[in-house]
Amino acid sequence: MKIQVKGVGLTKFGELWDKSLFDLSHEAATEAINDSGLTSRDIEAVFVANMLHGKLGSQDQLGAAVASQLNIKGASFRVEGACSSGGLAVHLAIQSLLAGTYKNVLVVGVEKMTDATLSEITSALMGAGSEEERKAGLTFPGLYALMARAHMQKFGTTKNHMASVAVKNHYHASLNEKAQFPFEITEEKVLNSPEICSPFTLFDVSPITDGAGAVVLSSQVGKGVFITGSAVATDTIGLSERASFTELAATKLASGKALKQAGVETSDIKIAEVHDCFTIAEILAMEDLGFCKKGEGGKFIYSKTTRLGGKLPINTSGGLKACGHPVAATGVKQIVEITQQLRGNAGKRQAKGVNAGLAHNIGGSGATAVVHVLQT
Amino acid sequence: MKIQVKGVGLTKFGELWDKSLFDLSHEAATEAINDSGLTSRDIEAVFVANMLHGKLGSQDQLGAAVASQLNIKGASFRVEGACSSGGLAVHLAIQSLLAGTYKNVLVVGVEKMTDATLSEITSALMGAGSEEERKAGLTFPGLYALMARAHMQKFGTTKNHMASVAVKNHYHASLNEKAQFPFEITEEKVLNSPEICSPFTLFDVSPITDGAGAVVLSSQVGKGVFITGSAVATDTIGLSERASFTELAATKLASGKALKQAGVETSDIKIAEVHDCFTIAEILAMEDLGFCKKGEGGKFIYSKTTRLGGKLPINTSGGLKACGHPVAATGVKQIVEITQQLRGNAGKRQAKGVNAGLAHNIGGSGATAVVHVLQT
Repeated sequence: MKIQVKGVGLTKFGELWDKSLFDLSHEAATEAINDSGLTSRDIEAVFVANMLHGKLGSQDQLGAAVASQLNIKGASFRVEGACSSGGLAVHLAIQSLLAGTYKNVLVVGVEKMTDATLSEITSALMGAGSEEERKAGLTFPGLYALMARAHMQKFGTTKNHMASVAVKNHYHASLNEKAQFPFEITEEKVLNSPEICSPFTLFDVSPITDGAGAVVLSSQVGKGVFITGSAVATDTIGLSERASFTELAATKLASGKALKQAGVETSDIKIAEVHDCFTIAEILAMEDLGFCKKGEGGKFIYSKTTRLGGKLPINTSGGLKACGHPVAATGVKQIVEITQQLRGNAGKRQAKGVNAGLAHNIGGSGATAVVHVLQT
Repeated sequence: MKIQVKGVGLTKFGELWDKSLFDLSHEAATEAINDSGLTSRDIEAVFVANMLHGKLGSQDQLGAAVASQLNIKGASFRVEGACSSGGLAVHLAIQSLLAGTYKNVLVVGVEKMTDATLSEITSALMGAGSEEERKAGLTFPGLYALMARAHMQKFGTTKNHMASVAVKNHYHASLNEKAQFPFEITEEKVLNSPEICSPFTLFDVSPITDGAGAVVLSSQVGKGVFITGSAVATDTIGLSERASFTELAATKLASGKALKQAGVETSDIKIAEVHDCFTIAEILAMEDLGFCKKGEGGKFIYSKTTRLGGKLPINTSGGLKACGHPVAATGVKQIVEITQQLRGNAGKRQAKGVNAGLAHNIGGSGATAVVHVLQT
């Protein structure tokens, strides 16, 4: 498969109290359409990724809402799979292009989270967990903390290993003007920050963020960046139903399929954006994507291999951790970042010699995994 | 295009207090998979249509939740476009088959509405309207009442015309064991029922319903029923932004595309399920789908042409009005009904000599329209 990323757009990520959800979606969409060299008249379908706005903003049917705001009369859809909504929307947009039904489509991932109270948002996010988990009083930090503890116990992963994920991603964010937290932190700062849910401290955890990302995808390929692999896999919603707490099986399934589709090996991937909703999640991603052996993800990241300048830069955007995590925008932002890197216009955070990248987006505690492979 | 409807499943529609959303989705999905002759192992992707369960049931990421309940590890998605969610999910499932990515996919439309209070559900359904409409205190009966009043004023449509829609659809429902209201009513009963929102009385309005529908779609075509056209169109979310209150422009756009794809004319369509959320909506649908001239929909239905035994049976399931309207299940149920009619196994409500049918699914007050053409 060969689908062109014809245009990309991204708003600033952060606490954007002066902007509505529709301000954000319009800004990212307009930027992506302009970047593509097309006009909104050329866009035949709009895929909107959003998790929370029905609950927090009382607005459903966001596909039509976003499309009609752009005066697009073609097809429109909202796609949701919790934090993997963005990746899922990209996958489905690709299907419609491969089908030949549409030639140019727009994907917008958008979330407006900071208008809600902390208890509203914590409760709303647990919609991505299982009923059993909600009844047990678990939150997402709690679910990933269970995985972190299991990984520490089984493989000797340390708090320092986890802290190094945050340190690296904050460094990358410091080079990204769109990032919510564009500043560096130290390992010590992470370890000494307030405990959120043992073993996590504040800096192990991704934030509540407003933001939008958009891409124009096209089957009319010219020169540029292409999506060459796209796959989705599913696991149980609840963590307790899984065979293992130390891997996300859906990541393995999805990445295997996406790499096969693209006709490349893991070793061909030179850069990746992965789903680091908590520091342990990036460690799991390194292992489950096959970038290192199972159990060695902590050491792998601690060794700075995945820091900009290293062999395999991971989350050059700053990741969910430091660029921010507007839930359904995240999967689209990952495609935007890899596209910018492969185009060679990632500015201060440009990685060298990258011709193949990967985007890895997770829903909930691993119930949904989406992997995209991008190549020049 | 030629996509086979390989299996169909449908729960009873109604106030199903003893069944959860997952009971309903599982029942419909299992029935559809069994009907297809496949097993869940053959299903490569699951598309779940749902509007309200994030808000009313606190559960998001329903794609993964429904898929993993069936032990399906492939791809999973939730698709939403208010009351058109079911039609949109079918459209996107078709894209993934046409793309060649999957060979057999499952679409489940499910909604669990009766556990909520009336004010919760009324408020939640306004998620399909615009913010302006919510702030104005409008409800969906109010929005469609505005369209009804405009139609009455412009074309002389009467309350009796509208009542005839309800009378016909209740007659059809009386022949359908799955219907929420399987009993006949008279024109007088409609006119004398309590006023909901002038000009609508109780029997002009579709009910609050629990239920699920499912279809297994396949690109590996054998003998049977096929989807030969599938199109989606978009209009503004808010009614006030439209040029006309007496037509749904998105219906015209979507049906034009779907018929062209199928290579058939309106006159080739022998049966249809249309979106009769209010009686006026079926009148608009007749006109906008081209079954009669603009302004003549009321008389057209009053003449019994669209009653079972007439030239063009419409809503043989009983429609949203009398079979019930579990929001996101509706679009899938329409495909189930047309498939059963084209297979010739619709029991007491079997229409004669039907080889081409149409399904018409609307989101909100017409912001989204989805049209499918089915043929033997």
